[in-house]
Amino acid sequence: MIEGMNPAAVATAETATELQALAARAGRTPFYVYNTAVIDAQLAALRAVLPTEVRLHYAVKANPLPALVEYIAQRVDGFDVASGGELAVALEGHLPRGFDIGFAGPGKSLEDIRAGVAAAVLFQCESVRELRAIAVAGQAAGVRPRVALRINPDITLRGAGQRMGGGPRPFGIDAEAAPEVLQLMATLPVEFAGFHFYAGSQMLDAATVVALLEHCYASAVALAPHAPAPVRVLNLGGGFGVPYHAGEQALELAPIGAALHQLVVRAATDFPDAHLVLELGRYLVAPAGRYVTRVVDRKVSRGEVFLVCDGGMNHHLAASGNLGQVLRRNFPVQVVEAASYLPQESREQAPSHKGEDSPVGASLLATLPSGAATETVTICGPLCTPLDVLAQRVELPVASEGDFVVIGMSGAYGATASPRGFLSHRGPVELLVAGSTSLDSTPPA
Amino acid sequence: MIEGMNPAAVATAETATELQALAARAGRTPFYVYNTAVIDAQLAALRAVLPTEVRLHYAVKANPLPALVEYIAQRVDGFDVASGGELAVALEGHLPRGFDIGFAGPGKSLEDIRAGVAAAVLFQCESVRELRAIAVAGQAAGVRPRVALRINPDITLRGAGQRMGGGPRPFGIDAEAAPEVLQLMATLPVEFAGFHFYAGSQMLDAATVVALLEHCYASAVALAPHAPAPVRVLNLGGGFGVPYHAGEQALELAPIGAALHQLVVRAATDFPDAHLVLELGRYLVAPAGRYVTRVVDRKVSRGEVFLVCDGGMNHHLAASGNLGQVLRRNFPVQVVEAASYLPQESREQAPSHKGEDSPVGASLLATLPSGAATETVTICGPLCTPLDVLAQRVELPVASEGDFVVIGMSGAYGATASPRGFLSHRGPVELLVAGSTSLDSTPPA
Repeated sequence: MIEGMNPAAVATAETATELQALAARAGRTPFYVYNTAVIDAQLAALRAVLPTEVRLHYAVKANPLPALVEYIAQRVDGFDVASGGELAVALEGHLPRGFDIGFAGPGKSLEDIRAGVAAAVLFQCESVRELRAIAVAGQAAGVRPRVALRINPDITLRGAGQRMGGGPRPFGIDAEAAPEVLQLMATLPVEFAGFHFYAGSQMLDAATVVALLEHCYASAVALAPHAPAPVRVLNLGGGFGVPYHAGEQALELAPIGAALHQLVVRAATDFPDAHLVLELGRYLVAPAGRYVTRVVDRKVSRGEVFLVCDGGMNHHLAASGNLGQVLRRNFPVQVVEAASYLPQESREQAPSHKGEDSPVGASLLATLPSGAATETVTICGPLCTPLDVLAQRVELPVASEGDFVVIGMSGAYGATASPRGFLSHRGPVELLVAGSTSLDSTPPA
Repeated sequence: MIEGMNPAAVATAETATELQALAARAGRTPFYVYNTAVIDAQLAALRAVLPTEVRLHYAVKANPLPALVEYIAQRVDGFDVASGGELAVALEGHLPRGFDIGFAGPGKSLEDIRAGVAAAVLFQCESVRELRAIAVAGQAAGVRPRVALRINPDITLRGAGQRMGGGPRPFGIDAEAAPEVLQLMATLPVEFAGFHFYAGSQMLDAATVVALLEHCYASAVALAPHAPAPVRVLNLGGGFGVPYHAGEQALELAPIGAALHQLVVRAATDFPDAHLVLELGRYLVAPAGRYVTRVVDRKVSRGEVFLVCDGGMNHHLAASGNLGQVLRRNFPVQVVEAASYLPQESREQAPSHKGEDSPVGASLLATLPSGAATETVTICGPLCTPLDVLAQRVELPVASEGDFVVIGMSGAYGATASPRGFLSHRGPVELLVAGSTSLDSTPPA
């Protein structure tokens, strides 16, 4: 089966030059490069449809690179962090006045809770145990921590890449148990702040997103009378997906914007003291990132062509299909001919051998197919495991040693979501760059 | 569906004390602990059946912890490394006289090849490109590098957890193309050393292992006449599996030993200058390792019990089922009651609330089932993703906050094969300990 012929894969001289410059800047391959112009474009697309009343948070887990986090801090209204480590990255930056940090995540340690209290975060509380631990930490620090309850809605979620809500979950508090927890909250030295929902991610269907937002909103309306104080924050989650694979369509934002305009109107009555929050990670940064690796070897084995690269699943687990995917599907991938490549020069100094111009050797050297502009290849990393596949049987321009392989849609859950130590290769460099790029990160149509 | 009731899961006081001591030594949870006595036992079991003529190598990729690598170096005849990073770890240790290092792995960089030349490794050469690069690097260094060809055998492999050989592969040189490469080798300034095979891993059926060993041996016999020099090293690979999951049986070593005795006899005629090598990673270290994490929260959601721990897929990707597994199956898992746990003391200082003895709160606090010794639980890590599951619907002794969760069979492809940076939690501590242990790492029967 041949997957995903990528019409954008024909490289231009410009992109080769750009990649060469980026590789020089990184000092080596492989590297991730994140383009701030794409982040800006994603933010602009959202701002164009969202009511101004909706506050936009960045979910740091999607990409916690400090420079990127700092960049985004200046352009959103808050962060969501999911660990003490992410909180530390957030606090390292210069945060604008009024910037808020929500702290979600099951299993928060006491150490993390104390750090959150010290930073005056909004706790997105996942359990009764955590609620009590927050109260203890607040008392010890002489403050009343702000707490929003994370609610596991009573919904059957379809159309989400991953589900964190609906049914039995380790995340949040079941909606039907929340009134009891709200009663408990009233007795504890914490400040009730509102509700938090995050039930699914990687949703590509606007109707699914809208239905979930409306369900969560209605759940908050039902729970509010049980709360010990007015709702001040209503975080409706996010889960906006991006198209990774052939045949996937970009999420339509307009219907989501329209639904949120209606919710803002209703909220003026239902929650007069509250602001609505959306929290987005992947949507903001995935399209901004590319993973760039270099072809180390082009091999032909029993009729199949393999491009073996200097990085693979150790740097980009998701592209290898081992980050929760049930079926392996290719990320958008391009090959770009490298104008100059030092190892090629070294190769030219290789001792000549008798068979150079004879059939001996010629068939071994994986001679490039003459006349063909493209071929079907499987792109692998350097690991000694069959799992290390970056792209399987994809038709691409003929590539050879030294050329670049570029995996698009790689700005979220890339470097940090990968087993960097696997087989003890070097980790990827990460670069944040400004300005536009001639490389198209959109997936194949 | 309830998976894998573990009869060994009832903890003894001794194991609780042991874990408490280990946690104190690690300074915190989560940690990996590797027991040298188990490594010794695995080595002894192998030595008991293997002919003394067969040299045993350790595949560093299975666990590159320097202290463990150094320990094993004193007990085997060589290493196999799969990257420049692994080579560096190997060379850091004190290597016994006559110790050999094989260097396999597709996509070896020029830098790694130069390092290998400098260390006088045996290159397990994966391609013609690499062969020429080794020759160049050898010339530059004024030496003739030793090179064994890695052969992709012409076999249909069944019964292996992962396949690196048979069919089209990025690994090694197709057996049918090898004669041509051997001709090329004769023209290059390298020393032909022999053949290397590694076609599959995690094999649990002795007959499968024997058939593969015999096939590879026969392949070497067929190729030897094409070689430019006598075979001195015949590395027949490894791939000996360990039982991870309920219903899996330990690999029977006796038939493998018997087959190797026959091959040693044949090799005396076929390859009078050669020694046979087996390379084993997982088999030596997987049973020696445990991953120990602590329950941070015990939650009940819609009737299901979740134990949320302080570590998960970020430390142990394989146990979460995201390291190549098609179906998620549980690793051997135990819970061990912690005798003392500081956070529990803090919890006792929690502000009391009105509902303490009333139905309010009681149902929320995930009250332990009265009278029941065991319950069905799902064990999760602290990450905000549904992928972060360490054990799914397993029946275990009732556990609560502070108790230990111990994942067995975790000595191979654990810490280094996991996305440590995922959600920016702290990495696991790794401990190497000597002596026996009362904790049984064997999987459920």
